Amino acid sequence: MILAIDVGGTKMAAGLVAPDGAVITSRRAATPQNADAETLWRTLTTLIDPLSARAEGVGVGCGGPMTWPDGEVSPLNIPGWRGFPLRARLAGRFPGLPVRLHNDAICLAIAEHWQGAGRGSADMLGMVVSTGVGGGLILGGRLVNGGTGNAGHIGHVVVEPDGGPRCGCGGHGCLEAVARGPALTTWALTHGWTPSAGPEPLAASEGGAASEGGAAYREDRAVTGRALAADARAGDPVAVLAMRRAGRALGIAIASATHLCDLDLVTIGGGLSQAGDPLFGPLEEALRDHARMGFARRVKVVPAALGQEAGLVGAAALLLAGGAYWPSTRD
Amino acid sequence: MILAIDVGGTKMAAGLVAPDGAVITSRRAATPQNADAETLWRTLTTLIDPLSARAEGVGVGCGGPMTWPDGEVSPLNIPGWRGFPLRARLAGRFPGLPVRLHNDAICLAIAEHWQGAGRGSADMLGMVVSTGVGGGLILGGRLVNGGTGNAGHIGHVVVEPDGGPRCGCGGHGCLEAVARGPALTTWALTHGWTPSAGPEPLAASEGGAASEGGAAYREDRAVTGRALAADARAGDPVAVLAMRRAGRALGIAIASATHLCDLDLVTIGGGLSQAGDPLFGPLEEALRDHARMGFARRVKVVPAALGQEAGLVGAAALLLAGGAYWPSTRD
Repeated sequence: MILAIDVGGTKMAAGLVAPDGAVITSRRAATPQNADAETLWRTLTTLIDPLSARAEGVGVGCGGPMTWPDGEVSPLNIPGWRGFPLRARLAGRFPGLPVRLHNDAICLAIAEHWQGAGRGSADMLGMVVSTGVGGGLILGGRLVNGGTGNAGHIGHVVVEPDGGPRCGCGGHGCLEAVARGPALTTWALTHGWTPSAGPEPLAASEGGAASEGGAAYREDRAVTGRALAADARAGDPVAVLAMRRAGRALGIAIASATHLCDLDLVTIGGGLSQAGDPLFGPLEEALRDHARMGFARRVKVVPAALGQEAGLVGAAALLLAGGAYWPSTRD
Repeated sequence: MILAIDVGGTKMAAGLVAPDGAVITSRRAATPQNADAETLWRTLTTLIDPLSARAEGVGVGCGGPMTWPDGEVSPLNIPGWRGFPLRARLAGRFPGLPVRLHNDAICLAIAEHWQGAGRGSADMLGMVVSTGVGGGLILGGRLVNGGTGNAGHIGHVVVEPDGGPRCGCGGHGCLEAVARGPALTTWALTHGWTPSAGPEPLAASEGGAASEGGAAYREDRAVTGRALAADARAGDPVAVLAMRRAGRALGIAIASATHLCDLDLVTIGGGLSQAGDPLFGPLEEALRDHARMGFARRVKVVPAALGQEAGLVGAAALLLAGGAYWPSTRD
């Protein structure tokens, strides 16, 4: 049984995952806001201690950036951890057990490949479109890490090189700068969107660094990418235009990734993927307009299949999947 | 000793390559223009037969597209071969010897990684910028093939999504549509470029599908990307602007590839790479403007180091490099 941990800016989750990927039990806790490093650590240990007796290994997904494979984490949405040695601290707490840690967006991609919409694909990109736009790249059936564990950053593929919006990374015209939830809600509000009263968005079902979160959004939960997606699905015209904007940017970036990596599949999870046709229609249109090489036409784009426990499943897969998602040289 | 073969639209080359990558001997012949499939095959066999006695394996680079790993080739610049079973025909001619075949741009990338400017890099993209823009992707020290052997198609990463020029692939705004030699010379001529008389460009030093070639350009050799590059280097203002256009597009595409694949190195060969600063200056500027994630700032872009025999070296490496460039499952 693997102790799986999913650390994000809004919540921390932990669970026991069986060798076949089934989540046997799980628990979650709110991530303390404005907390110092040791307070955050205590919250995590309180969460995981009741599960630890049966653990034969520990897999962790955490918001980035981080050093990899060392696992010193500095999650954007957890200011109290800057260079926090999460992998080493867990290794100290579980002597003798293997501990593996990766970016949460990568864990979600792994989960989709191992147990979700990507089963059987050899060459896929697993994406999350939410507060951020992230991803993980699987080529030849194995996770691609790149030199520093950062392969898969589809959110910083350039889609609007001329005068595109500034990005949090310091660049401009990145996919994330156009298609992240907060960019879209800002765009929609500017263009006259009034969030509908509708049901509360399911904030807890998004994971980690890519999650809707941050105090500004929890005060008024209706101004989220997920709410915008729901309004688009219900036919709100400005919300539909916002989804078109996101879909087009996604289609362009996916075409570029497909040509470069010869992909057969892209999965899309996160709050925005709930929009359905208003997002996926324009996405397909832009993708087919740009992915024109014969080999690239085969690529399929599908919604992610796993729910809110995907992060735990992917974290466990770092240990359970026979090395497909972790290089033996990095333990 | 490996019999290495490099098949392009302008010339065919063959050589014997030692296990350490040294080209012991080589020969070349003009590719017959407007020839049928068997005439082309006879030209090739006449070229390779004198070298075959010492061959312990056969490695081939050929212009694409092709089926891979089957090696049925349909090189854009060799109309007489459409679905020609080149790998099977060579296997028939050399019974008992392993025969491996890949895209010529991929062979050039392999050559740079194995023996050239990419030695020691774990995660690199080897590019050719000439009549076409191609590449090969090496991640974790191994060639990435993708599902159909087409990974590395950096030429079809989108760099001008809005109103970019039409591309030969049927899309628009691809890197290749902006930065390929013929696109740049057309652009330069339109903007008043008068090719200088200068020394004859060394047409034979470019390889395969990515080579300067085609009857239109051989009639007036000065109207080539290589000539334009030379004029830019000599300070011709329109040529300088054309190189700036190419460099900017290259920088954007390289930034996207670096974010997606976490690269540490990009090598650039082909005629245009001869331009030096007028190309690499604007390239660096656009790259640094867009590659802003911490991990992406380390990427280096350097000219390819190997000369006109790079194609042979890369083709031989398909067999000589211990499986780094050929999956054992594909023989």
